[in-house]
Amino acid sequence: MLKLFYSPGSCALASHIALTDAGADFEAVRIDFGAGEQLKPGYLEINPKGRVPSLIAEDGVLTETPAILAYIAQRYAAAKLAPVNDAFAFARAQEFNSYLCSTVHVAHAHRGRGKRWADDPIALADMKRKVPETVFNALKLIEDGMLKGPWVMGDTYTICDAYLYTVTLWLKGDGIDPARQLPRIAEHRQRMEERDVVKAVVADHFAELG
Amino acid sequence: MLKLFYSPGSCALASHIALTDAGADFEAVRIDFGAGEQLKPGYLEINPKGRVPSLIAEDGVLTETPAILAYIAQRYAAAKLAPVNDAFAFARAQEFNSYLCSTVHVAHAHRGRGKRWADDPIALADMKRKVPETVFNALKLIEDGMLKGPWVMGDTYTICDAYLYTVTLWLKGDGIDPARQLPRIAEHRQRMEERDVVKAVVADHFAELG
Repeated sequence: MLKLFYSPGSCALASHIALTDAGADFEAVRIDFGAGEQLKPGYLEINPKGRVPSLIAEDGVLTETPAILAYIAQRYAAAKLAPVNDAFAFARAQEFNSYLCSTVHVAHAHRGRGKRWADDPIALADMKRKVPETVFNALKLIEDGMLKGPWVMGDTYTICDAYLYTVTLWLKGDGIDPARQLPRIAEHRQRMEERDVVKAVVADHFAELG
Repeated sequence: MLKLFYSPGSCALASHIALTDAGADFEAVRIDFGAGEQLKPGYLEINPKGRVPSLIAEDGVLTETPAILAYIAQRYAAAKLAPVNDAFAFARAQEFNSYLCSTVHVAHAHRGRGKRWADDPIALADMKRKVPETVFNALKLIEDGMLKGPWVMGDTYTICDAYLYTVTLWLKGDGIDPARQLPRIAEHRQRMEERDVVKAVVADHFAELG
């Protein structure tokens, strides 16, 4: 059985949704960022980066959302979560995920994780101030064309949809009002939230621990 | 024929090497960042992000280094530049490339491209100051394990090697001395520079325009 390590509200939600979409046999293990669990030896042995997601598979551990999503799509090919046998179309899906990971997620991270790149309180405050602008600009390219509609890649739902949806959950905190500023992305989010898989995973992901 | 848009010394070098490794029929087109060519309408029509690399293929344009590298590996499967038919092993290669793109490249970009995330001169200076530390820490994980040796994935050369090599060309400017601080990565760079393909592409990439 696979094991997915996640923290609620993190980008691990994308892998969580995709594994569920794929019908994979997996266990989701919550890592408590509040208690710094991601930086404790037990977890660092699994993922020396001290981040989520991490996926333990039979052959070893995988990290990095775009890689985990591509793995799920290729391993559970019957679920048709990406056009894995069409080199160009598969690369298009990976291009989208790579952009989310290296541009959109990075822009967002300057709000709460500025210490990755600076120390001066003035620098941290200035990064935070600019987040509504940088995240909006990064998403505007998606709004204006990368999101084909109704799904990211067009008529067919893919791993990209789970990832875009995950990112949209951060927008309110980033000072963006999608309904007003990014209406196509807001519609996409709504379309995702009508899916039973998404409802179930989100409920599980954000459930209070008993 | 494919067309690769690059600027000298940018991450586009990785795709340039991989296309050459693959024996692809392609033309490399230089974009003059000094003249701001990447932000002019002609290029923005190809890549609205105003970045390189961009690869024009028969089916359309691809951007984002990890996606272009995966495309090259899958399209030119005979060149065996990645284990494209083994979902886990292929994902491992993509995990490495995703880390270079979203963590290593991003850490590096805070030296010269800080304006992506801040405006205050104090913030830009503080980001720049921290680059030797953040880039080193990001690469230390590669030095300490992600680089299996002799090649990134172990005994077999892959697309990951072209990408890691490209990143190492930035290290001196980032205030890092690989020979002293990251000896396994320094050796990998040397191993790459012994390859005829790398010699030829680097010469071409950095050649003065006539």
